[in-house]
Amino acid sequence: MSEAFGLDSRLAGDTLVVGDLPLSRVLLMRDARYAWLVLVPRKAGLVEVSDLPDEERALLWQEAGLAGSALRAVAPCDKLNIGALGNIVRQLHVHVVARTEGDAAWPGPVWGFGKAEPYADGEAEKRVEALRELLGLS
Amino acid sequence: MSEAFGLDSRLAGDTLVVGDLPLSRVLLMRDARYAWLVLVPRKAGLVEVSDLPDEERALLWQEAGLAGSALRAVAPCDKLNIGALGNIVRQLHVHVVARTEGDAAWPGPVWGFGKAEPYADGEAEKRVEALRELLGLS
Repeated sequence: MSEAFGLDSRLAGDTLVVGDLPLSRVLLMRDARYAWLVLVPRKAGLVEVSDLPDEERALLWQEAGLAGSALRAVAPCDKLNIGALGNIVRQLHVHVVARTEGDAAWPGPVWGFGKAEPYADGEAEKRVEALRELLGLS
Repeated sequence: MSEAFGLDSRLAGDTLVVGDLPLSRVLLMRDARYAWLVLVPRKAGLVEVSDLPDEERALLWQEAGLAGSALRAVAPCDKLNIGALGNIVRQLHVHVVARTEGDAAWPGPVWGFGKAEPYADGEAEKRVEALRELLGLS
């Protein structure tokens, strides 16, 4: 019997749910410093991208591309950063981050840099709503 | 007339050439702290992964997967890190890094962390040879 999908508790605590694409749950990081999405394939037991069969692996990267386009639409940026690290949270997840020159961590990576800043009241929810619409999840 | 592919001078200086996969030039980072490959699609003018047409985008991620398997074979690791950042070097490139618990930057990202350490004499070339063989480039 295959284990049911469950979201890692740290990922759950750090994010708001945007919605589900065919493979991945899309999450917005609760960090106003960057427009930052995290994609988590909804299958149990995944750690590396290579744990996915070929077709789903392709789908994951495709969904990361969609996430990048949606981010660009809500937060014009200079560069997208895509990363699958998982050194701390082992559940397979892909980060897609809209970076702007001069942002908090620029030009370094966002992971592990400083402390998340809360969104102003209602702003994260507004962003989630806009992303949901752009991703066809509303 | 399309511009010819040329490798960014910073990437060229920081790496040794492993060889060419169908889409990407594969490079070994001159940094003995990690087994670290960089893939650069051999087309001019690319910045974002989304600048590639769908098929080549899929191929890039596929080649990143091959790079990860080859790295695992030459340097057993606890986690692969995959990243497309490009905040400093804008030419599209994908990092694939074999991470081990307790390595120099663990559990943080390798990008921008400390200073590269040179390989001992001949060791980088040996690793390049092993990777070339594993990737079917020899």
